[in-house]
Amino acid sequence: MNKEIRIFSPATVANVACGFDVLGFCLDTIGDEMVIRQTEQKGIKITVIEGYDLPFEVEQNVAGVSALAMYNSLQPDCGFEIEIYKNIKPGSGIGSSSASAAGSVFGMNELLGKPLNKTQLTHFAMKGEALASKCEHADNLAPAIFGGFTLVKSASPLQILQLPTPSDLFVTLIHPQIEIKTSESRAILPKEILLQNAIIQWANVGSLVHALHTSNYDLIKDALCDVVIEPYRKQLIPHFDDVKNAAMKAGALGCAISGSGPSIFMLSKGEDIAKSVQKAIKTVYAKTNIAFETYVSKINTEGIKTIL
Amino acid sequence: MNKEIRIFSPATVANVACGFDVLGFCLDTIGDEMVIRQTEQKGIKITVIEGYDLPFEVEQNVAGVSALAMYNSLQPDCGFEIEIYKNIKPGSGIGSSSASAAGSVFGMNELLGKPLNKTQLTHFAMKGEALASKCEHADNLAPAIFGGFTLVKSASPLQILQLPTPSDLFVTLIHPQIEIKTSESRAILPKEILLQNAIIQWANVGSLVHALHTSNYDLIKDALCDVVIEPYRKQLIPHFDDVKNAAMKAGALGCAISGSGPSIFMLSKGEDIAKSVQKAIKTVYAKTNIAFETYVSKINTEGIKTIL
Repeated sequence: MNKEIRIFSPATVANVACGFDVLGFCLDTIGDEMVIRQTEQKGIKITVIEGYDLPFEVEQNVAGVSALAMYNSLQPDCGFEIEIYKNIKPGSGIGSSSASAAGSVFGMNELLGKPLNKTQLTHFAMKGEALASKCEHADNLAPAIFGGFTLVKSASPLQILQLPTPSDLFVTLIHPQIEIKTSESRAILPKEILLQNAIIQWANVGSLVHALHTSNYDLIKDALCDVVIEPYRKQLIPHFDDVKNAAMKAGALGCAISGSGPSIFMLSKGEDIAKSVQKAIKTVYAKTNIAFETYVSKINTEGIKTIL
Repeated sequence: MNKEIRIFSPATVANVACGFDVLGFCLDTIGDEMVIRQTEQKGIKITVIEGYDLPFEVEQNVAGVSALAMYNSLQPDCGFEIEIYKNIKPGSGIGSSSASAAGSVFGMNELLGKPLNKTQLTHFAMKGEALASKCEHADNLAPAIFGGFTLVKSASPLQILQLPTPSDLFVTLIHPQIEIKTSESRAILPKEILLQNAIIQWANVGSLVHALHTSNYDLIKDALCDVVIEPYRKQLIPHFDDVKNAAMKAGALGCAISGSGPSIFMLSKGEDIAKSVQKAIKTVYAKTNIAFETYVSKINTEGIKTIL
């Protein structure tokens, strides 16, 4: 009989205000499911895709490309079938492609008896991520695979740090159903930034890492500030300032763009505040004619996992 | 009888490779001594200056200006005399003016029964520092007053974080006896920097803070890297690259400019390596016709203190 496992591959938030291109964290209540099946027939096959319309051709599919990279490297004496049950909408800014790319390699690794560590899995998953975002990066993959808060110290050589997660930290998320092209959100950024703004940003990154280590929620609040990227990218997200103002007024520790948007995330101390924040930002978007979804989630310290 | 105390006011290293304008740490074996005396006669007086030729006029002296700022704010029913025994050469890049500025306010605070906390002391010391460096900053004052590693999250409002110090961390320092004008070392810096370099820098700042929290010496080594400031400022320091190469070859975790130079610091794991590093960099400068001093020191986790 063919061995198979079902996995939960979580959504993630990259950048985390001050930590553009390096910080990320993992969500708990939003994610894809995937089934990975070990087969006698060699090769990689995608057999089911539900939820969103994505290509079945392995070389055209993010989960397929990462699976193939790992498969070609390990050359196991078997093959794999991949079933993808997608809940995370592609282009939402909460790591949809990363969840797919991480899911296939995680599942294969489990079935093969865990020959690879988490950094090695991330390495192969980056090959899939590159298909979606045109460059190999790990800002969403690292939190998906490691769980909790992560810092990608460098992409080449790949070096990922797992940061501590204060236990009372909750996420509120709003996904306005608009499309922002990754190319556009990249093109809007300047090549050069003011040194004085860079200093503010790295003071905040250092402070945020210290705050996570010391469970200092006041300092998390002070550090969740992006003076470099947000002024540009928020122009692509309707009502960003209104959402942020409402969230902060409702008690959020911070509010910033998730990845390259359009989703916006808030961090709060405690689930009650996170839910008040959700209510407040719903009110903002309810007045517009833009469809939207909101979520509340704990920080997921486990990351991608096998489920029953 | 007039109450008096004698204090040790330590030298400090600001910037710490990746942490330009925000990180600093405190040295143990190098510092000034000062005597602060409470007098019945009101006002601030500088009565002794030894070691280097500095002005006795309170408004012209760094220690005097900080003392006066605190004195005018607290308006105590007494006065203070300040004796300065300077060991840290002004302009050496290891916080000479900060040691003076911190010393007077620390001593007065002790004599008055500690009405002020460390952040408040730093606030007044910054007034003195501004006389020397033309701007109010706390990169050297914070480690002098708090001890260990510090991160100045922001100068206004003043927010200082005390970071943990791994117990086996030692400093080697070389002070080439050349003059670099602060104005020149500021002028050489660009107003704008590449976003991609800023990202590397804040990944390193975050990694260094994480490494200090986890006593991860390998990560300290990886994070002690400055891609933003060093390429400019090292031009002002003869044989910088040779010193760095020799230090790294001798086993240092990292090597970078101390403050705005000309001093260069190295961090090492253990005193033995720090001494091997000292030997290696001495060899480099011995071949030149530039006078120099070298030091080895533990990281001073206590900061400025009363001595017998």
